[in-house]
Amino acid sequence: MTKLFNDPSTFMEDALDGFVLANARYVAKVSGGVVRAQETKPGKVAVVVGGGSGHYPAFCGVVGPGFADGAVVGNIFTSPSTDDAYRVAKAADGGGGVLFSTGNYAGDVMNFNLAKDKLVAEGIDTRNVYVTDDVASAPVEDAHKRRGIAGDFVVFKAASAAAEAGLSLDEVERIAVRANERSRTMGVGLAGCTMPGATEPLFTVPEGMMGVGLGIHGEPGIAEEKLPSASDLADLLVDRVIAEKPDDAGPKVGAILNGLGATKYEELFVVWGRVARRLDELGLEVVDPEVGELVTSLDMAGISLTLVYLDDELETYWRAGADTPAYKKGGLEGASDAPARSAEDLAAVSEATTFAEGSPASQKTATQVLGALEVMAATIADAEAELGRIDAVAGDGDHGRGMVKGVNAAVEAARGVSGDGAGVETLLARAGEAWAAKAGGTSGVLWGQALKAFGASLGDTRESYTDGDTVEAVQAFLDTLTSLGKASLGDKTMVDALTPFVETLRSEVDRGASLAAAWASAAEVATKAADETAQLRPKVGRARPLAKKSVGTPDAGAISFAMCMTTVGEYLAAGKD
Amino acid sequence: MTKLFNDPSTFMEDALDGFVLANARYVAKVSGGVVRAQETKPGKVAVVVGGGSGHYPAFCGVVGPGFADGAVVGNIFTSPSTDDAYRVAKAADGGGGVLFSTGNYAGDVMNFNLAKDKLVAEGIDTRNVYVTDDVASAPVEDAHKRRGIAGDFVVFKAASAAAEAGLSLDEVERIAVRANERSRTMGVGLAGCTMPGATEPLFTVPEGMMGVGLGIHGEPGIAEEKLPSASDLADLLVDRVIAEKPDDAGPKVGAILNGLGATKYEELFVVWGRVARRLDELGLEVVDPEVGELVTSLDMAGISLTLVYLDDELETYWRAGADTPAYKKGGLEGASDAPARSAEDLAAVSEATTFAEGSPASQKTATQVLGALEVMAATIADAEAELGRIDAVAGDGDHGRGMVKGVNAAVEAARGVSGDGAGVETLLARAGEAWAAKAGGTSGVLWGQALKAFGASLGDTRESYTDGDTVEAVQAFLDTLTSLGKASLGDKTMVDALTPFVETLRSEVDRGASLAAAWASAAEVATKAADETAQLRPKVGRARPLAKKSVGTPDAGAISFAMCMTTVGEYLAAGKD
Repeated sequence: MTKLFNDPSTFMEDALDGFVLANARYVAKVSGGVVRAQETKPGKVAVVVGGGSGHYPAFCGVVGPGFADGAVVGNIFTSPSTDDAYRVAKAADGGGGVLFSTGNYAGDVMNFNLAKDKLVAEGIDTRNVYVTDDVASAPVEDAHKRRGIAGDFVVFKAASAAAEAGLSLDEVERIAVRANERSRTMGVGLAGCTMPGATEPLFTVPEGMMGVGLGIHGEPGIAEEKLPSASDLADLLVDRVIAEKPDDAGPKVGAILNGLGATKYEELFVVWGRVARRLDELGLEVVDPEVGELVTSLDMAGISLTLVYLDDELETYWRAGADTPAYKKGGLEGASDAPARSAEDLAAVSEATTFAEGSPASQKTATQVLGALEVMAATIADAEAELGRIDAVAGDGDHGRGMVKGVNAAVEAARGVSGDGAGVETLLARAGEAWAAKAGGTSGVLWGQALKAFGASLGDTRESYTDGDTVEAVQAFLDTLTSLGKASLGDKTMVDALTPFVETLRSEVDRGASLAAAWASAAEVATKAADETAQLRPKVGRARPLAKKSVGTPDAGAISFAMCMTTVGEYLAAGKD
Repeated sequence: MTKLFNDPSTFMEDALDGFVLANARYVAKVSGGVVRAQETKPGKVAVVVGGGSGHYPAFCGVVGPGFADGAVVGNIFTSPSTDDAYRVAKAADGGGGVLFSTGNYAGDVMNFNLAKDKLVAEGIDTRNVYVTDDVASAPVEDAHKRRGIAGDFVVFKAASAAAEAGLSLDEVERIAVRANERSRTMGVGLAGCTMPGATEPLFTVPEGMMGVGLGIHGEPGIAEEKLPSASDLADLLVDRVIAEKPDDAGPKVGAILNGLGATKYEELFVVWGRVARRLDELGLEVVDPEVGELVTSLDMAGISLTLVYLDDELETYWRAGADTPAYKKGGLEGASDAPARSAEDLAAVSEATTFAEGSPASQKTATQVLGALEVMAATIADAEAELGRIDAVAGDGDHGRGMVKGVNAAVEAARGVSGDGAGVETLLARAGEAWAAKAGGTSGVLWGQALKAFGASLGDTRESYTDGDTVEAVQAFLDTLTSLGKASLGDKTMVDALTPFVETLRSEVDRGASLAAAWASAAEVATKAADETAQLRPKVGRARPLAKKSVGTPDAGAISFAMCMTTVGEYLAAGKD
């Protein structure tokens, strides 16, 4: 949904104005588009690209050294006019002639051809190359009718790099034609974009489906299919592009995995992981892959894969540097001359795994603690979805999953040392580290560190343990939580359940109750306190500050803590039988 | 909506894997995150950034020369663990100590503090700086409780550039603290993001509203307000950030206008146009503004403005070059040393405005043509919405707007020369160029060129005109359209209405009907033919190839042509009265 605009009818002009203001060090405004802000070498061929707007960084975003000399900027998804193209080319021309290049769309072809006629009539040698990389837009026998999508980037870059290298207009044209002949793109659309001021998208894709063979102007795909996993989608893209591999293709390809706007970087990388492996299996070496947004379609969701089959010449221009508002390559002098880090060094960062054997009493306690962790793991697994729902009210809904990951990792780590002579301090140090490492987030580190403190309070070496020692260990758990988490009673956190738990446990043990009975009473108090956190409002500024709406819902961390204590109480009671 | 994933529970790992495969020239994977692929100078301070993932390019996207030495990568929106941070720092450490920097979130603070303790215990000097730029997350008196959002980028970059310059850990820490103290960000959320595998977004914003004071982990804003125009939103952001301008601030600021994911580049540029003017009015000089996606939140829609009040030292590090997967600065050697183009040269690209006076007959015909254009403009204005609806079925819905822009521009251009002695060829040359320039797109250039051909057929110099001359002019209109547009009868275009129009006009005039009567008959035939295009399917590959669903809907271009001919027929008939 395009939401930010002033007058929708001047959206393109407003955007171009802001673009030039943000990039005055690269581009200057001319009637119809932009040209480089700096003069180029006399006699250099001017590469002028263009088309409708709504595709940023295409096309004005790639004007600058190493890339285009000028970009003609039409309205959203609409060809610029003949005069626009003519004027930008006139401003960009440095005496070496003009190469126009756009995607192969009727409006662009007409307008840029007419602009060429006008320039030629004035004695400015001009050539036009239209990009036809979209394999889904026409069958291979009608390849000249295909549209240009992300392959625009490949062709524009090759032509521009050749022009920057000082080649003649004949040569620049030849290289642009060659780059186009060697480029293939396949894409899928996942959700439509809206025009500025419109309230409905230009198309919609049904839930769980995709449009195969995307367009970049709000066109749906050619066929609707079920949306597959990221890997299966990667296979679909690779298979379709590879099916038209030229007979004389060498082992090297340039590649673009392009996001259309709302399909974000993390998703692109997930797909790329599979694409890269497939290309490797096919014996292809990918040179300088580009994974990101190069040719967008407003906020459309979708993805496309472009391959350009490189020969030595195309490889040179694909690798060449550029410095433009939206695309930079080449970077700092000597940056990549430094030696690569050794894989051994990088893998060597790990920790000691040996430990001293614990006393018999500490080993026995360790075994009990492992049992408690195991029942906690079972309880949390059952409660995962419920904890997620509670957390989603005020947080990001990941508390259930985080707890499952954490407690399972803790059990696994504890099992790894239990029976090998580990005392309770060692066992909980390993369990706590594993919990924190796998759960991540705030509750992960709190549980992890608090468990470590619980274990450290008991130690690996004592000859016996009393119920009072357990109370002190639980106190150490609480103290770590409050000092590390900086939460106080009433802040709507786990502390609100833990504090009354410790108080009750201590007073019950002090008045002579068995540990199991005291624990059961304390767990009951903690459960009630956890439920009562529904009345609280989280303290603003400490963590996620926004949860006004969470009043009425208890704190997920307090709830999961109370659940764990309840199940451990049952475990202790069963042990007494 | 996050749509592309394999197993949602390994989304982060899958994304990181693909990221490393795509960027092997920059980064190497280590347990917990990534470090630079190349060794750094011995003794260099290592800047290690991090946090949860889902924010790309933050944080792994900015690892490389001039920027971070390593990035610790947590799960989506979840702090990485202590061990993750410890291990990445161990791998990144070059003997000069470690500066950790993350946003100020409880989980990150705990984990990175604990990692610091662990490193310090091993003799690796480590400092932690937490970013607190989000002015909406806590009042100014609690500024230390604020969260880090896009200001992360500023602080990480300043610290990294200082480390790259060889400064000591004390100095790098001081500069990071200073950059944080001088950075302020204000943002708004426009639509929520979804976690991989989830079917519902983490929050929603009601239609026409915005969440003021965004979070970058799926939190809604602090307050809901009506979504204003782009300019009013720019004012809101500027006012809120400027309200906390430090007393000792100089005239220079660095600026980031950051998109959260689905708020696209064109929208950012529209907002930036106003932000840049406001900052200029406030006497601030913006150094190297960044307008784009630097700290995202999956596919959330939203925008934030960050200002960093620069002193000489911060300016140096803000301007410094970098070469990383997602952020590059510095570019090609000498690229910006070339002289700037002169504004005069750029403005000079325009065309002659004089013309020779037409013959009286041609001037009279020109006046009639202007009248016809005027009634067409009125008719098209009334039909704009309807034409848009028809076009939206198979195209992008802009036909109505394009026609309005085109015909209005044509009328204006024609009025500009009518009465100054222009003949019909001159008048229609101007009108046609204006139509094409303002309407853009395919129909713009077709109408423009066809009108020019109509005028050229009549010429500026003849002494009289017959109805047969008009028929030939209309034939020239058709010939231009078919040769330029490459459409044939049956392709579902304007040609399907125009061809029978010309045939009827010619046969009616040939059999002696008055021009007005012949025109009326031809317009009737054209209207019927335009309606019948509903039965046709557009020819695949020629233009937009996807419109299977347009069967049942007529072609918008044929309909608008028939409307124009009908109204011109009425105009001719009225002229006869």
